[in-house]
Amino acid sequence: MPGFSFQLKKTDGGARLGEIETAHGNVRTPAFMPVGTQAAVKAVRPDEVRALGTDIVLANTYHLMLRPGAERIAVLGGLHRFMNWPHPILTDSGGFQVMSLSPLRKLDANGVTFRSHLDGAMVALTPERAVEIQDLLGADIAMQLDECIKLPAASAEVERAMRLSLSWAERSKRAFEHAKDRALFGIVQGGTDVNLRLESARVLIDLSFPGYAIGGLAVGEPQEVMLALLDLVTPVLPEDRPRYLMGVGTPEDLLEAVSRGIDLFDCVLPTRNGRHGLAFTRFGAVNLRNARHADDARPLDPESPYGLARDYSRAYLHHLLKANEMLAAMLISASNLAYYQELMHGMRVAIAAGRFADFREQTRAAWARGDLPALT
Amino acid sequence: MPGFSFQLKKTDGGARLGEIETAHGNVRTPAFMPVGTQAAVKAVRPDEVRALGTDIVLANTYHLMLRPGAERIAVLGGLHRFMNWPHPILTDSGGFQVMSLSPLRKLDANGVTFRSHLDGAMVALTPERAVEIQDLLGADIAMQLDECIKLPAASAEVERAMRLSLSWAERSKRAFEHAKDRALFGIVQGGTDVNLRLESARVLIDLSFPGYAIGGLAVGEPQEVMLALLDLVTPVLPEDRPRYLMGVGTPEDLLEAVSRGIDLFDCVLPTRNGRHGLAFTRFGAVNLRNARHADDARPLDPESPYGLARDYSRAYLHHLLKANEMLAAMLISASNLAYYQELMHGMRVAIAAGRFADFREQTRAAWARGDLPALT
Repeated sequence: MPGFSFQLKKTDGGARLGEIETAHGNVRTPAFMPVGTQAAVKAVRPDEVRALGTDIVLANTYHLMLRPGAERIAVLGGLHRFMNWPHPILTDSGGFQVMSLSPLRKLDANGVTFRSHLDGAMVALTPERAVEIQDLLGADIAMQLDECIKLPAASAEVERAMRLSLSWAERSKRAFEHAKDRALFGIVQGGTDVNLRLESARVLIDLSFPGYAIGGLAVGEPQEVMLALLDLVTPVLPEDRPRYLMGVGTPEDLLEAVSRGIDLFDCVLPTRNGRHGLAFTRFGAVNLRNARHADDARPLDPESPYGLARDYSRAYLHHLLKANEMLAAMLISASNLAYYQELMHGMRVAIAAGRFADFREQTRAAWARGDLPALT
Repeated sequence: MPGFSFQLKKTDGGARLGEIETAHGNVRTPAFMPVGTQAAVKAVRPDEVRALGTDIVLANTYHLMLRPGAERIAVLGGLHRFMNWPHPILTDSGGFQVMSLSPLRKLDANGVTFRSHLDGAMVALTPERAVEIQDLLGADIAMQLDECIKLPAASAEVERAMRLSLSWAERSKRAFEHAKDRALFGIVQGGTDVNLRLESARVLIDLSFPGYAIGGLAVGEPQEVMLALLDLVTPVLPEDRPRYLMGVGTPEDLLEAVSRGIDLFDCVLPTRNGRHGLAFTRFGAVNLRNARHADDARPLDPESPYGLARDYSRAYLHHLLKANEMLAAMLISASNLAYYQELMHGMRVAIAAGRFADFREQTRAAWARGDLPALT
C-alpha cells in the first residue's frame, strides 16, 4: 500500500515496538491517539498536542458528518488543514456513535439510518458512505463501518452483529479500493465470546487489511475479561500489521494491552477527566477538586519532566476548578496528555532496550505508591 | 519610592512613551493590562499571555478576597507565584465589584459591608482592609478603595461619592505607608462633572500618589464625553506619574486615550469578546459566529504577525464556536490579546519615532476599511 506501511522493529515478550508510515508523517508505536471528536482535542491547542509528543490524533466521523459536514471539510482542504494538524489522523467510522448518541436508529443489512442528535435530521450511513466520508476528510487511517452493540447481550445478538460487521468489512474494503496513500482497518468484533472473536479475526485476515482493530471492548466489562480476550485474539493477528484497541483506556489498560501486543490506542479519558479535575500522574490519579488541595503549594508532580505538572500548585489548580476557569481544563487536560505520552514513550524506550517487564513492574509500583501524602 | 518608578521618555502631541519599573520587571507604556479576575486571564495560559507581549496583568481584589482568600494566597507565596505570573501585577481595590456584583451592600464613611455573591456571607471592606488585602496578594501596583456609582446620577450624589473617595484615598495612603517595593495609585472620581473631576484630581495630587487613575468612566456614557473629560483632566495630572484609565476599552478608546496622555489600561473586552466569538483585527471587529464564515477558508487576518490570526481558517473558528469547543475561546481570546498588544506596541513605536499622528490616522483608516469582503 503506497504511502502507508508498518514496520515491526522489535518485540519484547508480547510487547511490540514499531513505526507506521503515512503520507502525513510517522507514528511511533505503541502510540496513544488523543481524541479530537469535533476536529479539536478538547481544551488543548493542536500545536501543544504535538509538543506533548503526539504523533497521531483521532477524529469522529459521526460528529463531523453532522457538523460541519464532510463535504464542507473537503472543500476547505481536508481535515488536516481544517484543524491545523498536518500530522497523521485516524477517523473512526461512525458506527459506535450512531449506536450511543442517536435518539432513533434503524438498522438493516444495507446500513443504518439514524436521527441526528443535533437537529433531528434523518441521516443514512452505509459501509460505502462511511468510507466516502473518511475519503472526504482525508484520514490517513480510516475504519470500516461496524455495528457496535451494548454488552451484555444475548449471544445470538452478538453473533448477528459480528457477522453483519464482517459483511460490512468486505463492502468497506471494496469501496476503499481506489484510495491512495491511506489505509483502511478492519474491526474484530464478537463481544466477549472467544470463538466469535477468533472467527471475526480469521475472516478479516482473509480479506487482508493493512491493520486490525479490536472493537467493542472496554465498554463496561471487567479489565481481566478484556485482557483475557486480548491474550487470545492478538496472537492470531498478523505480526506485520498494526493492532488497534479502540476506545482504551486508563494508563493501566495501556500498559497491560501493550504487554499483550497492542500498538495503537485512543481514549477520551485524559481530556475528559482533565476537564473534571482528575489528573493522571506517575503516582496514580489525583482528584484536584478535593478540598485537601486548597492550601497545597506543591505541584502535581514535582519531578515531572513536563512543565504543566511542575509549574502550577495544587492549590491553584483547585482554585481554578472551584472558580470554573477554563484554564483548569486547559492545564489539567494538557498535563494528562503529557502523562499519557510520557507513558507511551517510556514503553517504547523500554521495549527498544529489552526491559519492558522491568518498566511495567516499576510503573505499577509507582502507581501503587500513590499520590503524595496530604499536608498535615 | 524604592522598587517603583516611572520614567517619561518622550511625548508626541499628547501621547506619552514611558516605562514603569517594578520589583517584578518593567512595564512599557502606553500599556494594556489583560484582566485576570480570578487570578487567571480567561482561556489564555500565563506563558502565552506573556508571549503575546504583555508586561502586566490586572487581578481583582473583590474576587480573590472571597475565593480563594487573600490570606490563603499570602501563605501560598503571594499572587505572582499563585498564578505563575512572575511579572508585574496591578490589583484593583474591590470598590467597583462591590457595587456591581453584591446582592446587598451597606455603605458609610468607614467603608462598605456587602454580601458575597458566592456564598452569601457578609464581608466588610474598608480603605485599610483593601490595602491589607492587596499587601497580602503582593500587587506591584495597588489601588485605593473608592466608591463607584452608577451613571447617570444626581450631581449631589456624584459629589458625595467623590468626596468619600477622597477621604478613603487619604486613609488608603496612610495604611499603605509601610509598603516596600510597591505603589498605591489614587483614583480621580467625579462622574461627568468637570469641576468635580478637577477638584478630585487636585486633592489627590496634594496627597502625592506615585500614579493616578481615572475611574468611573466608560460606564455607558458616549465616547466623546469620556474623551472630553480626559482632555480636561489629564493636563492637570503630574507629568512624571503614570496615568491609568480604568476599565477601558475598545481599540478605538485606547488609541484616542493614548493621544490624550493616558499610559495604562485594563479591560475584559479582548477575552470576553473572544469567548463570544468576536475577534478584534487590524480591520475592525469580526463576528465569527456569523454564518458567512462557515465556508471561508481564509484566516482572520492573512497578514497578522501573530500565528493565531493566520493559521486557522474562519470556517474552523466558526465551527468551533458552533460546536461549543473551548478551543474557540482559547484561540480567539489569545488572538484578541495579540491584537491589543500589537496595537499598544505600534503606538509605542510611533511615539518613539515622533509619528503618532500618522499612526493614529493609518490605524483608523484600516479599521474604517473594515473586514475582508464576504465570499461570493
